[in-house]
Amino acid sequence: MNQSLLPASRCLQPVSHLRKINGSVRGFATAFNWEDPLVASELYTEEELAIQDTARQYCQERLLPRVLDAYRNENYDRKILEEMGELGLLGASIEGYGCAGASTVASGLITKEVERVDSGYRSGMSVQSSLAMTAIYEFGSQELKDRLLPGLAKGKIAGCFGLTEPNHGSDPGSMETVAREHPTKKGYYSLSGTKTWITNSPISDIMVVWAKLESGGKIRGFVVERDQCPPGTLETPAIKNKTALRASITGLIQMDDCPVPKENMFPDVEGLTGPFTCLNSARLGIAFGAMGALEDCLSRARTYALERKQFKGNPLAKYQLIQKKLADAATDAAYGTLAATQVARLKDDGKSTPEMISMIKRQNCDRALANSRILQEIFGGNATSDEYHIARHAANLFVVQTYEGQSDIHTLILGRAITGVQAFV
Amino acid sequence: MNQSLLPASRCLQPVSHLRKINGSVRGFATAFNWEDPLVASELYTEEELAIQDTARQYCQERLLPRVLDAYRNENYDRKILEEMGELGLLGASIEGYGCAGASTVASGLITKEVERVDSGYRSGMSVQSSLAMTAIYEFGSQELKDRLLPGLAKGKIAGCFGLTEPNHGSDPGSMETVAREHPTKKGYYSLSGTKTWITNSPISDIMVVWAKLESGGKIRGFVVERDQCPPGTLETPAIKNKTALRASITGLIQMDDCPVPKENMFPDVEGLTGPFTCLNSARLGIAFGAMGALEDCLSRARTYALERKQFKGNPLAKYQLIQKKLADAATDAAYGTLAATQVARLKDDGKSTPEMISMIKRQNCDRALANSRILQEIFGGNATSDEYHIARHAANLFVVQTYEGQSDIHTLILGRAITGVQAFV
Amino acid sequence: MNQSLLPASRCLQPVSHLRKINGSVRGFATAFNWEDPLVASELYTEEELAIQDTARQYCQERLLPRVLDAYRNENYDRKILEEMGELGLLGASIEGYGCAGASTVASGLITKEVERVDSGYRSGMSVQSSLAMTAIYEFGSQELKDRLLPGLAKGKIAGCFGLTEPNHGSDPGSMETVAREHPTKKGYYSLSGTKTWITNSPISDIMVVWAKLESGGKIRGFVVERDQCPPGTLETPAIKNKTALRASITGLIQMDDCPVPKENMFPDVEGLTGPFTCLNSARLGIAFGAMGALEDCLSRARTYALERKQFKGNPLAKYQLIQKKLADAATDAAYGTLAATQVARLKDDGKSTPEMISMIKRQNCDRALANSRILQEIFGGNATSDEYHIARHAANLFVVQTYEGQSDIHTLILGRAITGVQAFV
Amino acid sequence: MNQSLLPASRCLQPVSHLRKINGSVRGFATAFNWEDPLVASELYTEEELAIQDTARQYCQERLLPRVLDAYRNENYDRKILEEMGELGLLGASIEGYGCAGASTVASGLITKEVERVDSGYRSGMSVQSSLAMTAIYEFGSQELKDRLLPGLAKGKIAGCFGLTEPNHGSDPGSMETVAREHPTKKGYYSLSGTKTWITNSPISDIMVVWAKLESGGKIRGFVVERDQCPPGTLETPAIKNKTALRASITGLIQMDDCPVPKENMFPDVEGLTGPFTCLNSARLGIAFGAMGALEDCLSRARTYALERKQFKGNPLAKYQLIQKKLADAATDAAYGTLAATQVARLKDDGKSTPEMISMIKRQNCDRALANSRILQEIFGGNATSDEYHIARHAANLFVVQTYEGQSDIHTLILGRAITGVQAFV
Repeated sequence: MNQSLLPASRCLQPVSHLRKINGSVRGFATAFNWEDPLVASELYTEEELAIQDTARQYCQERLLPRVLDAYRNENYDRKILEEMGELGLLGASIEGYGCAGASTVASGLITKEVERVDSGYRSGMSVQSSLAMTAIYEFGSQELKDRLLPGLAKGKIAGCFGLTEPNHGSDPGSMETVAREHPTKKGYYSLSGTKTWITNSPISDIMVVWAKLESGGKIRGFVVERDQCPPGTLETPAIKNKTALRASITGLIQMDDCPVPKENMFPDVEGLTGPFTCLNSARLGIAFGAMGALEDCLSRARTYALERKQFKGNPLAKYQLIQKKLADAATDAAYGTLAATQVARLKDDGKSTPEMISMIKRQNCDRALANSRILQEIFGGNATSDEYHIARHAANLFVVQTYEGQSDIHTLILGRAITGVQAFV
Repeated sequence: MNQSLLPASRCLQPVSHLRKINGSVRGFATAFNWEDPLVASELYTEEELAIQDTARQYCQERLLPRVLDAYRNENYDRKILEEMGELGLLGASIEGYGCAGASTVASGLITKEVERVDSGYRSGMSVQSSLAMTAIYEFGSQELKDRLLPGLAKGKIAGCFGLTEPNHGSDPGSMETVAREHPTKKGYYSLSGTKTWITNSPISDIMVVWAKLESGGKIRGFVVERDQCPPGTLETPAIKNKTALRASITGLIQMDDCPVPKENMFPDVEGLTGPFTCLNSARLGIAFGAMGALEDCLSRARTYALERKQFKGNPLAKYQLIQKKLADAATDAAYGTLAATQVARLKDDGKSTPEMISMIKRQNCDRALANSRILQEIFGGNATSDEYHIARHAANLFVVQTYEGQSDIHTLILGRAITGVQAFV
Repeated sequence: MNQSLLPASRCLQPVSHLRKINGSVRGFATAFNWEDPLVASELYTEEELAIQDTARQYCQERLLPRVLDAYRNENYDRKILEEMGELGLLGASIEGYGCAGASTVASGLITKEVERVDSGYRSGMSVQSSLAMTAIYEFGSQELKDRLLPGLAKGKIAGCFGLTEPNHGSDPGSMETVAREHPTKKGYYSLSGTKTWITNSPISDIMVVWAKLESGGKIRGFVVERDQCPPGTLETPAIKNKTALRASITGLIQMDDCPVPKENMFPDVEGLTGPFTCLNSARLGIAFGAMGALEDCLSRARTYALERKQFKGNPLAKYQLIQKKLADAATDAAYGTLAATQVARLKDDGKSTPEMISMIKRQNCDRALANSRILQEIFGGNATSDEYHIARHAANLFVVQTYEGQSDIHTLILGRAITGVQAFV
Repeated sequence: MNQSLLPASRCLQPVSHLRKINGSVRGFATAFNWEDPLVASELYTEEELAIQDTARQYCQERLLPRVLDAYRNENYDRKILEEMGELGLLGASIEGYGCAGASTVASGLITKEVERVDSGYRSGMSVQSSLAMTAIYEFGSQELKDRLLPGLAKGKIAGCFGLTEPNHGSDPGSMETVAREHPTKKGYYSLSGTKTWITNSPISDIMVVWAKLESGGKIRGFVVERDQCPPGTLETPAIKNKTALRASITGLIQMDDCPVPKENMFPDVEGLTGPFTCLNSARLGIAFGAMGALEDCLSRARTYALERKQFKGNPLAKYQLIQKKLADAATDAAYGTLAATQVARLKDDGKSTPEMISMIKRQNCDRALANSRILQEIFGGNATSDEYHIARHAANLFVVQTYEGQSDIHTLILGRAITGVQAFV
C-alpha cells in the first residue's frame, strides 16, 4: 500500500481488495453468461437463490401453460393465489403470520420470476402481497393481523387495494371517497365512493380502501370485508375488454353507504403515508418484476433471431441491426437488476428512501417497455401471433409503466428530490 | 421461515435478511442524496472511500484551476503526472514496484475523480496506468518491470501506448507497423510504421508499441525508449487543433527503422491478447470515469438551474422540462456507477470477462455523452461560455465514447457474446 | 431585383415570389390550425379535398361505430368493401374499369381517412386496391382486367395478395411456392405452397399469388380464383388471436396442386418487379395512412388532456411534460403529411422512385408508432380501456411499421441508395 | 372520374392529376438522388434555383477555404459582409433599398448555402439581414430606411440586434435595459443596460437595441449609431473562448447613459411585437440553414464511410449500423427541407403564422443537431481532427438549437397553440 495515497490516520487497516461481496463463493464465472451478464447472482445469498429457483420452477411449470388462454379470454384463475400461498410466495418478506420472512431481495426475485411469465400474474400477486397484506401488516390492529394475514398468506383470502378513483389517479390526495359516522349502525363508518382499476377487486374477499373522513378530511384506511356488507352497499364489477394485463382481473369498488366496523379502520396512520408505504413496497417489486419480463422478451427474441433465417440462409442474429437490439436489451436488464437489488438490500438495512424507489420503478419500467418494443421488431409480422408472447409482454409493460406512479410522476418526484423545488403544478 | 418455500435440503440455515452488503456500518441514509441516489458508497470499503477522498481533493484543488487554460491552449502540464505519482494515483491497482496495490474498485474511483474534472486529464492518467504500466506489469520481463515501473508509478517516466494506426482503428489486427530483425544491429529489432491518436506520445519517455513480426506476422509488443533511439528513427509530433480532449496531449509515433533491443519485446504474449488485456483495464477505468464527468455535468446543471431565473422569477429548476433532464441524468449516473462497481468487484474476484467490460464501457459512455448534451441545454446560450464547463465535458465525452472501442464495436462484441454469431463483417 | 445576384442569362424574368403553389386561393390562414399546422391543405386541389371530405365522412359515420366491436371479436365485416366500392374508394387512382381515376394524392388522402379510424380497415382496403387491383391493372391480360377490375372496384369481388411465406418475409426472393405444368390438366399450372399473414385471404374470391416456375425458377404472378379450385387444392384458414389489426381478417393461402389456367398468369412480368410494383403503391398509401392514425391519436390525446384534471384542478394540458408529447406528435404528423404529398405528386408526374417510397414508408410509420405510444402515456391507466382507442392505434401501428417492408429493411434500401453499397448480407 | 366519389356540385372540373406543382418542367428524376431524396428542387422556381447556385458557388469557393482558420482563432473576417453584399445576399427578400427583392424561399436557400459551410457565417449574415435590416425595414422611419438600408445591403454598414441580456434570455419581456429622457441633451433618449451574446456587436456600426421606456415601461426599439456615441457611453467587447460558432464574432453591448436621438426610436411599434417579428424572420432562415449544415454533415460522413475501410477491406459504408446513421440523416434533411419550403411559401402568400415557424425552427434544429452527432460517430477518433469539419458543425448546431428560442421554449409555444393553455409558468 502506497502510504502517500492516504492520510496517516486512515492507514491503519490493510486494503482487503479481494473481499467478497457476499459470503458464498460459488465458483468462478469463467464465461460470459448472457442471461446474467453482470453476475447479479453473486449478490444473492444461497437462500435467496433457492427461493428464486422455487418460484421460477412454479412459474414456468404451472403459470406459463395457462397464460395464453387466460390472456385471450380475460380469465384469471382464482386458484393461482392458493398455489402461490402454498409455496409461500405471498407476503414473502413479512415475519410471522405464516409468511416466509424472507429478505426484500428474495421477495423481489419472486416477483421477477412471476413477471417473467406475465405482468398480469405478477399484478395479481403484488396486490395481495405488497398492497393488501403490507397495509394490514404495517397499519392494521393486532386483531386484524391475526385474523386476516394467515388466510391472505395462504391465498385462502383474496385481497385488493382501493386507492385510485375515476377522477384521481396521479393525484390521490384529491380523492372523493368519504367515510362518515354511520347514521344508524353504532360503531360503524359508512363508506361511499368509487375506486377503479383495482386489480383483483371482483374476486376479493377483503378490500383495503382509502377514504377521507367526513370530519376533518383526513385520509384513513379501512378493511372492507365483503361478507359483512349488506346487499346493495358494495359492488365490484369487472372491467372487460382491457387492452393489456388481460391475464389479471381488474374491476371497480363501488361503495354506497357501505358499513364498516370502526375497528377495521387502521388506527395510527392518516394522510397519504399509509397508501404510499404500500405503494413503495409494490413499486420495489415492480422494479424487479419488469426486469423479469424484459429478460423473457430478450430470451425469446434471441431464440427467434437464431432460428429465423432470411437472406442466404443467415439467421437474423447475424445482422448488425438485430444484434444492437439484443445488446441494448441485455444491458438494460443487467443494469436494472443491479439497481433493484441494491435498493432492496438498502431497504432491508433500513437505508432506503421513497425517492430511490421512484428512481428504479421509473427507470426499470421505462427500459423494459422500450426494449420489449424494440425486441418485438425482431419478430416482424410474426409478433402479431400471440404464441410468440412478445406482444403480450409489450402491451403489459405499458401498463406496468403507468400504474403505481406513471413515469412522469416519478420524474417529478425525482426532480423535486434533486432540486428541492416541486414542479407538479 | 415458511418451509414450503424451499426444498428441505436448502433449509438448514436461517435467512439473514439483514445481512450487511459490506462490513462497515456507516450510519443510516435517512435522506435521499442526489449525489449518490442509490448509495453506491455502501459498496465501498473505508479504504476505498479514503482513496477516493484523496483523489477528489487533489483533483478539485489542483487540476480544476488549471483546466480552462489547458483546454483553451491545448497545453498539458507534464508535472501532473508527477503530482499524481506522488499521491500514488498511477498504476494504483498494481502490487509492488512502488504502486498502491489498491483494489480495482479503488482505481476506478480515482479515475472517476480525475474525469470529474476533465476527460483529458483522465486520459493522460489512464494511458500511463492502464495501458503503459499494465502492459509492462502483465507482459514485461522482470528486468523491464524493475527498471521502469517505479519511475512510471512516480510519474518520473512518462509512458504511452501505440496500437491505433492511421488506417486501422476499430480493426487493429490489420496493423501495418512491422518489426524485423535489425539488418545491422545484432540483438535488435527494427520497427517501422506510424501510430496515431496516441495520448501523451509527444511527452513520453517510453512507448509500448505493438507491431507485427516480419517473419510470421504475429503481433508482438515492444517497449521503445526514446533516449535509446538514434536521430531520425523516432518522431512523436503532436496533433494540434483538436476538437476535444484539448487538456491532454495527443500525437503520433512515427518509427523509421527504429532499433529496439530484443529484450524490450514482451516475451510471452502474441496476437491481440496483449493489447486487449490493457484495453480491458483502461475500459473499466473509463466506465468509472465517464460517470465522474456525468456527475459533474449534473451538479453544474443543477446549480445553474437553481440560480438562473426566467419567467416571473422562477428558477429554471421549477420547470418540468428541466427536471426531467436532471432526473434522467441522475438515474443514469447512479445506475452506471453501480454497474462499474460490480464489474470491478468481479475483476478483483477473478470473475470478470471482457464482454462485461464492453457492456459497461459502452453503456456508461453512451449515457454520459447523451446526458451531458441534454444537460447542456439547461444552460442555453451560456453553454457557449467555456466557464460553465459543460460544453467541454460534452465535447470530451464524444471522444471517450469513441476511443478504446467505439460503441458500435462494443455492440457487436456484445451481440456476438449473446448470440454466438459474429456480425463484424 | 439585385442584378448581381444572378448571372445575366438568368435574369430575364422577374421573380414572382407571390406565385401560388396551387391555383386555388382559399382564404388566408390567419390562425394556426393544430390539425394542419403547416397547411398541407394548400397543396391539394379542390377535387382532392372533396374526395378527402367524402372519405372522411364515410369513415367517421360508418366505420368508426363498428370498430370497437370488430376489434374485440376479430370480426371484419365483408360489407365494408362494398360500401367503399360504392363510394369509389377502391382502386381510386386507376383509370377506367369503373375506377375513380383520381390522383395519387387523392388516393393517399382516402387512405389517410380510413386509417384515421383503424389501420386494419385501411389494410383491408389497401390489399384490395394497391395490391390486388394494381397487380391486375399493371400486369394482367386485358381479359383479366376486363373481367375482374370492375367487380373489384365495386367491392363485389374481394381480392388478396399472396407473397409472404412462413419462412420468407423480408426476403421474398427465396420463396418456396412453386408453379409447375399441371400433370393432368392441359393449359393449367399447378400451384403448391403456403402464403401467410395474407390480409383478406379467408374472404377473398380471387388471390394474386406469386410463385416460382419449376422450370427456370423465375418468380411469376397468378390470379387464383377460388371458385375454380377443386376441393382440397385451396384452403384459406384465418389466423386468430392476433395481437393487433384485429378489425381486419388475416389468413393463410394453402395451395396443394391447385390448378390455375395459364391465361391467369401475368404475361409480361417476372422476378420481383411485379410484387415490388404493387408494394410500392401500397407503401405510398401506408405513408399517408399512418399519418391519419397519428392525427387521430393526437386529437384524442389533446381532448383527454384538456378534459382530465389532476392536481389543483389543472387540466393535464397545462403541464409541460404533456405539452411536449403533443408538440412532438403534431410536428411529426405535419412533416410526414408534407413528405407523403410530395412523393405522391412526384409519382403522378412520373418522377418518383422506389427509394423515395421506402423513405416515407419507413419514416412515417416509425414516427406514427413512436408518437402513438408516447401519446398513450397521457391517458395513464385509462389507456387500458379500449374505449379511448389509443391502445388500438398503437398496437396496429406496430404491424403497419413491420409489414410491407419492416423499417430495418427500408433502412438498408436507403443505405444502399445513398452509398451504392448493399448491406443486406 | 367516379361520380359517386364527389358531391355533384364538386364534379364540374376533371381531376388533373398530372398537374405540375410548379411551372418549370426540368427533366424527369429517373434516379434517386441522395442529395435531394424527395426532389425539393421541383418546388423552386428557376430564379430561386439560380439564386441558390450563386450563393452556393460563393460559399464553397470563398467561405469554405477560410473557415478552419477562422474557427480555430475566433477570427471573423469583416470583409465577408461586403462580399455578401456585393452578391445581393444580404436582406435578399427586402424590396427596394438596393436589396434583391427575392422570395422568402430564395432567402431561405441562401441561408442554407451559407450554413452548409458554417453556422457562424450564417449567423453573421442572419443578424445583418433578418434582424437588423428587417427591424429597420419593418419598423424604422423612412429616414432611417433611406439612410441605412442601402449601406447595410451592401455590407458597408454592419449591424446587430440587441435583445438578450445577461439575466434574460428566454424571457426578454423582463429586460432591464432602460431608455429615459436624456437629462441634458434635448431630443435624445439616454440608454443604459447590457445586452449579451450579440452576434457582430464588436464590429457593428449600428445596433438595433430594445429597451424599456422609463415612463410606462413599454419595450421600444432604437437604432444606436456607434459613431454618434460619446466616449464611455457605448462598449462592445467581444466574448472570447467560445465553445462553438467561433467563426462568428460575438460580444456585449454595454450602454451607460448612451444618448440616442429620438428619431432613432422606431415610431409605431411597442412591446415584444417588434423583436418577435424580426426573430420570426431569422428563425425561418435558421430552419433552412440547419438543413444546409446537416446536408454537409451527411455528405462528409458518406464520403468518409466510402473511403474508410475496416475489417477485411470493407468500406464502413458496407455496415448496417453505419447505413442506418446515413439513412436517418438523409430522411430528416429531406423532410426538414420540405417543411421549411412550405412555410416560406406560405409566408410569401401571407398565410404563415409564428407557430409554424416555431415548429420548423425547433424540429429542424433538433434533427440537424441530433443527426450531426450521430454522423460524427462514423468518423471515430478522426472526428477529433477539425479538418473533417464534422465536430465543428455539431458544436455549432447546439447553439443554433438554443438561440432564437431554445427548443423547449418552442415546445411550449406549440403546446399553447395546440391546447390553448400556456405552460410557461
